[in-house]
Amino acid sequence: MSNTIDFYFDYSSPYGFLASERIESIAAANDHTVVWRPILLGAVFKVTGQTPLTEAPLKGEYSIMDFTRSAREQKLNYSHPEKFPIGAVAACRATLWLRENRDASLQALTGNFIHEVYRAYFTDNKDITNPEIIAEVAGSMGIDVPTMASALTEQAVKDLLRSEVESAIANGVFGSPMMIVNGEKFWGNDRLDQMERWLQSGGW
Amino acid sequence: MSNTIDFYFDYSSPYGFLASERIESIAAANDHTVVWRPILLGAVFKVTGQTPLTEAPLKGEYSIMDFTRSAREQKLNYSHPEKFPIGAVAACRATLWLRENRDASLQALTGNFIHEVYRAYFTDNKDITNPEIIAEVAGSMGIDVPTMASALTEQAVKDLLRSEVESAIANGVFGSPMMIVNGEKFWGNDRLDQMERWLQSGGW
Repeated sequence: MSNTIDFYFDYSSPYGFLASERIESIAAANDHTVVWRPILLGAVFKVTGQTPLTEAPLKGEYSIMDFTRSAREQKLNYSHPEKFPIGAVAACRATLWLRENRDASLQALTGNFIHEVYRAYFTDNKDITNPEIIAEVAGSMGIDVPTMASALTEQAVKDLLRSEVESAIANGVFGSPMMIVNGEKFWGNDRLDQMERWLQSGGW
Repeated sequence: MSNTIDFYFDYSSPYGFLASERIESIAAANDHTVVWRPILLGAVFKVTGQTPLTEAPLKGEYSIMDFTRSAREQKLNYSHPEKFPIGAVAACRATLWLRENRDASLQALTGNFIHEVYRAYFTDNKDITNPEIIAEVAGSMGIDVPTMASALTEQAVKDLLRSEVESAIANGVFGSPMMIVNGEKFWGNDRLDQMERWLQSGGW
């Protein structure tokens, strides 16, 4: 399929979480499929010089309120994690291992795995930097945990994450979530509706 | 009227411009009135340590594209100003002088004056830091230019702008546009629709 939405996200991004809960239905309603692209914003921020939203004076306090209020509007439970922000390396690697898996039944679990990891972090306040938590999530979905654990130590999987982050930066990705549709970038959970209008109208 | 929307904006803010073109109709449709609150983000950024959006690597380029694309969707012409960002002190003072004027016919011009100044800057690429441009805008609306020019040098008008900026910061305003409705803050042009849903539903 050529009608794809590249969905770049960081597991530490509240707006990434909120958008991840809507992106598939928006894509489906507009005959598109989602390509899940986990990235590490820490690496991106080294290039852009940004600091996490929640650490800015005034803005930080507002942000946490806004995450919660926007989640409530989407009927999602948002509980701002104690450990925040994080670099969810294992979760990213596991996601890419699923997405690129030769086993189609594992590949098909990618989206749900992302939802479960995000919910573990932002709803259940679990420490998703802990590989045991990632294993727990995978296990609960029927993924063979020893196989996954062993895959995550493979150089090919590590390299894949590195090259995905590098190519995201090369494509101008600087935040989470960012959606790219036919080269058109939409940054932020608050651009989802605009992206949908873009898909429906063919652009303006 | 107690049903008011405090609309904080900086004349140098593209998203402030875009939101200013919609806020009155959203307010009216929901039985609210707009209180126009010009601020100087330069003073706010000293507190928050932020830098202008357009100066961040990667993000800067995207931002200018996004201003233009969002404007196009609103059927507005956006031409990114050569001189950007600016500190539009005279324009802010003139706005407050109108808003607080004892002459009700001048007071009533506040909203239109804001639209004309914003359009001069973001559509016609005029240098609105130049008091002559502000005088030109005022004159075209039938405002007596010498009266206004003299008012803008008054200490009371200068003090009013300073105290408005200080109270904005004290109220947690850190960006433009920011709408505050009954203590509920909505930051960004992309929160206008959410703010309207909030007004319609009574909150969630």
